[in-house]
Amino acid sequence: ILRPQVKGNTNIRVSLPAVCFVWQIAMIILFGVFIRYDEESDAHWVEFRRENNITSDIENDFYFRYPSFQDVHVMIFVGFGFLMTFLKRYSFGGVGFNFLIAAFGLQWALLMQGWFHALNPETGKITIGVESLINADFCCAGSLIAYGALLGKVSPVQLLVVTLFGVTLFAVEEYIILDLLHCRDAGGSMVIHAFGGYYGLAISWVLYRPNLHQSKRLNGSVYHSDVFAMIGTLFLWMFWPSFNSAITDHGDGQHRAAINTYLALASSVLTTVAISSMSQKRGKLDMVHIQNATLAGGVAMGTAAEFMITPYGSLIVGFCTGIISTFGYLFVTPFLEKHLKLQDTCGVHNLHAMPGMLGGFIGAIVAAAADESVYSREGLINTFDFEGEFANRSVGTQGGFQAAGTCVAIAFGLVGGAIVGFILRFPIWGDPADDNCYDDEVYWEVPEDEEAIPPVLEYNNHMIHKHQDM
Amino acid sequence: ILRPQVKGNTNIRVSLPAVCFVWQIAMIILFGVFIRYDEESDAHWVEFRRENNITSDIENDFYFRYPSFQDVHVMIFVGFGFLMTFLKRYSFGGVGFNFLIAAFGLQWALLMQGWFHALNPETGKITIGVESLINADFCCAGSLIAYGALLGKVSPVQLLVVTLFGVTLFAVEEYIILDLLHCRDAGGSMVIHAFGGYYGLAISWVLYRPNLHQSKRLNGSVYHSDVFAMIGTLFLWMFWPSFNSAITDHGDGQHRAAINTYLALASSVLTTVAISSMSQKRGKLDMVHIQNATLAGGVAMGTAAEFMITPYGSLIVGFCTGIISTFGYLFVTPFLEKHLKLQDTCGVHNLHAMPGMLGGFIGAIVAAAADESVYSREGLINTFDFEGEFANRSVGTQGGFQAAGTCVAIAFGLVGGAIVGFILRFPIWGDPADDNCYDDEVYWEVPEDEEAIPPVLEYNNHMIHKHQDM
Amino acid sequence: ILRPQVKGNTNIRVSLPAVCFVWQIAMIILFGVFIRYDEESDAHWVEFRRENNITSDIENDFYFRYPSFQDVHVMIFVGFGFLMTFLKRYSFGGVGFNFLIAAFGLQWALLMQGWFHALNPETGKITIGVESLINADFCCAGSLIAYGALLGKVSPVQLLVVTLFGVTLFAVEEYIILDLLHCRDAGGSMVIHAFGGYYGLAISWVLYRPNLHQSKRLNGSVYHSDVFAMIGTLFLWMFWPSFNSAITDHGDGQHRAAINTYLALASSVLTTVAISSMSQKRGKLDMVHIQNATLAGGVAMGTAAEFMITPYGSLIVGFCTGIISTFGYLFVTPFLEKHLKLQDTCGVHNLHAMPGMLGGFIGAIVAAAADESVYSREGLINTFDFEGEFANRSVGTQGGFQAAGTCVAIAFGLVGGAIVGFILRFPIWGDPADDNCYDDEVYWEVPEDEEAIPPVLEYNNHMIHKHQDM
Repeated sequence: ILRPQVKGNTNIRVSLPAVCFVWQIAMIILFGVFIRYDEESDAHWVEFRRENNITSDIENDFYFRYPSFQDVHVMIFVGFGFLMTFLKRYSFGGVGFNFLIAAFGLQWALLMQGWFHALNPETGKITIGVESLINADFCCAGSLIAYGALLGKVSPVQLLVVTLFGVTLFAVEEYIILDLLHCRDAGGSMVIHAFGGYYGLAISWVLYRPNLHQSKRLNGSVYHSDVFAMIGTLFLWMFWPSFNSAITDHGDGQHRAAINTYLALASSVLTTVAISSMSQKRGKLDMVHIQNATLAGGVAMGTAAEFMITPYGSLIVGFCTGIISTFGYLFVTPFLEKHLKLQDTCGVHNLHAMPGMLGGFIGAIVAAAADESVYSREGLINTFDFEGEFANRSVGTQGGFQAAGTCVAIAFGLVGGAIVGFILRFPIWGDPADDNCYDDEVYWEVPEDEEAIPPVLEYNNHMIHKHQDM
Repeated sequence: ILRPQVKGNTNIRVSLPAVCFVWQIAMIILFGVFIRYDEESDAHWVEFRRENNITSDIENDFYFRYPSFQDVHVMIFVGFGFLMTFLKRYSFGGVGFNFLIAAFGLQWALLMQGWFHALNPETGKITIGVESLINADFCCAGSLIAYGALLGKVSPVQLLVVTLFGVTLFAVEEYIILDLLHCRDAGGSMVIHAFGGYYGLAISWVLYRPNLHQSKRLNGSVYHSDVFAMIGTLFLWMFWPSFNSAITDHGDGQHRAAINTYLALASSVLTTVAISSMSQKRGKLDMVHIQNATLAGGVAMGTAAEFMITPYGSLIVGFCTGIISTFGYLFVTPFLEKHLKLQDTCGVHNLHAMPGMLGGFIGAIVAAAADESVYSREGLINTFDFEGEFANRSVGTQGGFQAAGTCVAIAFGLVGGAIVGFILRFPIWGDPADDNCYDDEVYWEVPEDEEAIPPVLEYNNHMIHKHQDM
Repeated sequence: ILRPQVKGNTNIRVSLPAVCFVWQIAMIILFGVFIRYDEESDAHWVEFRRENNITSDIENDFYFRYPSFQDVHVMIFVGFGFLMTFLKRYSFGGVGFNFLIAAFGLQWALLMQGWFHALNPETGKITIGVESLINADFCCAGSLIAYGALLGKVSPVQLLVVTLFGVTLFAVEEYIILDLLHCRDAGGSMVIHAFGGYYGLAISWVLYRPNLHQSKRLNGSVYHSDVFAMIGTLFLWMFWPSFNSAITDHGDGQHRAAINTYLALASSVLTTVAISSMSQKRGKLDMVHIQNATLAGGVAMGTAAEFMITPYGSLIVGFCTGIISTFGYLFVTPFLEKHLKLQDTCGVHNLHAMPGMLGGFIGAIVAAAADESVYSREGLINTFDFEGEFANRSVGTQGGFQAAGTCVAIAFGLVGGAIVGFILRFPIWGDPADDNCYDDEVYWEVPEDEEAIPPVLEYNNHMIHKHQDM
């Protein structure tokens, strides 16, 4: 029924299984060598409790973090996955490849983050608990954001490569930013969104396709695919307070981060709607804006959510980023495509890169403006972790380091992405031809749509062919 | 391709952005003046803990309430949102406008509820924490329920007005019912469902459209839109135990409310299926009933869930309300439309107004029948909050006040809705013409459905036009 | 528009309402006689706390279990429900009947499991709390799995019978396995998946339909129904760590079970993708595999998740079961259908029966290999509950009993399913004819798909009929 034929060397029957098997086996071996349960998930916990005078099982970190972990998990798999189902014929690839690369990425992240953050120098082992799982999900998010810029234009093998390097780069930049520079970035404006966004954009820039317009017919949504994408949008939007609070300090830290994010997100919705409506004939809304720019407030609060940014401060952040992100979809994405040869399928520049960068600088400003009268002495120490070698750091210095951290994240994204992009240009990865992008036919067994072509129409088609023959 | 043209003055390119911007800026200013973090979300928490001998961070209310909050949040945005995607061509409006008005409503609710319930007379500030967020979501629910009666017939600007007044009325009636009458209504049978339902019905009654039949072709579902709506139904159904228990007493209160709601909902499903099957030829089920009446048990348990209603009592409530709600869809909605000129798109009368009212009276009866032998002395005081000036109130009196509270909620809904309805009749709001309702084309950029009209058919269309020309 | 007529005696207008009403009334009576709140959900909790020196409300089991309960609840209703929407014209039946039978099953499960596990011999009452709700949901899962084998081929009345007996058999086998044999099976590899899988397969085998090929045109997916099914897959996949940890020991037990399941599931995804890609021309992926086999790791960890299986052990389990399950879809299901006359719509053999059985034996091996140096003395006692009459059981013996328990579960499934299958062959249940399976038209009022047949096409149809008349 007149579907375009799959062209180019997109056969991944050897490469995809090979990569999956080899990498998964490598994970098993490395986990065997390095990964162990931490005290709170080990069967020795009863003894550990007694030795450390922990009065109740509820003091196990599991009960502080697990609900947030599950919310983050939903964001990674349903949130990001369904947000990428908006294309009319790439919903399988959107949600399916997101699933694949996150499932690989979280394993590799447990190792990479473990080596940098949780390697016991005596035993040579990494111990993991619920917080490690959250961090692994976070680490995947960087690569999933990058996928947003590449959606429909790369093969699953390429995506696994993007994830392998993405997770590796993430762990290094995270180590530099959080450990060496001692920045705070609980919700990852810098380490997740700015990094992930620029990483994906740099890859996409290197992989520029001059004839991508040949796939234009499939680069858009249909009615139901836009509704599917709203599932992704809403689960991201609803659970973003959990995302930004998942690994903040127990108690007030988690509490405050959730409140701030909730408010910023609400504010983003109103300004997104306003700008979207202003931009169209008769004030009509554009689903692309609603699906994406409404989330910008959450991205931009990734660093500052745990600080005393105040409730109205959160609203202001959401207000501005909702506007900026929607303007991005209206003007920046077309500009980048036309003048910088940068093809960004999901507009990750507007949702992640730019709001993430802004979030980093907002965090720097809020940190620099922190004040003992607002935080209390102990609160200030807790919030910014001014302990050990950082006990004497001033809030001004902290602000400077936060800003520096943002630049590090962007630099890692751009340079790392450029390198990975060049690797992905080798003609061995099975990526689709320019006239074959955004099409699930390339990598999926797609069912015949009998519903769309009911019996009477099939008869009809015959007639038409006869007419054509005449 | 023969889409009906958009008629009437539905241009909202000025009004919608203006309302969004002005109101959001007002929110920022009012938040700046009034809203602060409470003790448990403020950085002073460490000090507060020490001063109040709170032994562990896990005693922060965040850990008692946050999982319930997130469940409620999902109900508000995915539950209500997707429940309203059932129309064949109003899914964008269903889920999108729900998103918009809830995002505005929750901010306004934090202020309105704060002024009435949490204003510190000394500082003049409102302090917020996780419970405030839950209450703000609850407060939005009243307006979202009202939206259900108006679905497809109003503009987003009108919906924002509905929400502005809805939240305001909600805060006042809630203050009267919970504070002055000292009623218990943790899950909001009265303050949320009865109020919201009658509020929406009164608005819809004032906005009666005599020629709405001209939009009849779009007032129905298609196969996939019914499946989308089931996402909404199920998330509401699954998380309703969290809704009814979210702000009940710590410990047994939350525990019992969840159990009772779980049971009532299960019972509703069976009687809904029974009545739906009985009502149709060959016993076929109607998706409208399954999508809605299965939830009636949760609505009707909104007041009594935290009481000692007993597990079998919960089943009885679900049993009866499932029947009543399904009968409502079969007979009451058509009757109201024909004889009372009341057009109720989603049937909120059957799902919210009537079960909510019933829930209020069920709560009154269960309260009046409360007994120290069942609750224990302390349990009775805890459950009904018989403290301070209400220390000597008898359970019989409490039952009377609960019944009075239900009437207050209904009165606020009807009177408030009538007034708001008249405001919405000014010809300035951009609402659609009678033959243009239930159509996303009016307020959304709707993608061309290329999938539904594959290449071969486009050719076909040409042929047809030629035939028509002949 | 050329829809096949509904044939056979599928009128359930009397039987379905009768069963729903009678059974629901029976539930109410039995709940009235037997079911009460437990200490933690009763209003006496304040007194109970004081008497038992429980220092805080947060020690209520509600706070240990409720987030997991809600995740399990989502798996039962959205997970299983949407997983079964993949058929092009049975999405209503998939998600709707799943809803119905789970809502009945959980009530019956509270009674059956209560009689076997929680009947107070003095009072003759069953007391319930949040853990009972989780167990009731688990108990339903067995029957929902069985539904997977029967999808599209049975009436809702038959499904209620399947559930009545399924829950009953479940409670008995669970009592034998957990209480008499003293096995551990927190996530139910044995009692839920092996039992439920073989129960459904045995029923399907007895109900063999020789002419089912007459419904072949509807036994497949369309593009959007596959995306709907991914909602089910992902919510199952994401929340499986909660499923396997929901009723494990407080503290390290829950913590460890979540980690192990998370890892096994991630590993399954990669091997499923690998085998799926290898099996198809050009390495294309098959949605059936991605929707199902990715979950096999969770099933197979149902017993061992709470043990010290080690993180890499979990990865190995997921690795192997992902391969086995995908092979099952490729080879075993066609083989069973052709040679054993076993029609298994959803392939529950590959997702539940076989991985469940494997999970049982994996649990036996891990138990037999348990070691005091790994668990600590107390940890070993806690994990395997070596207390009371089982205080002297060795880990080797435990392993033997675990293996025996797996066999008991399978035997109950096969024998119970065969008997129930014969009951369902009576010609009174309203099941569809062989050429009428997989069709929502039989039991649902299905909306006309106006969208799929826009005005221009209707005109077109007329033309065609004219042509046909010529």
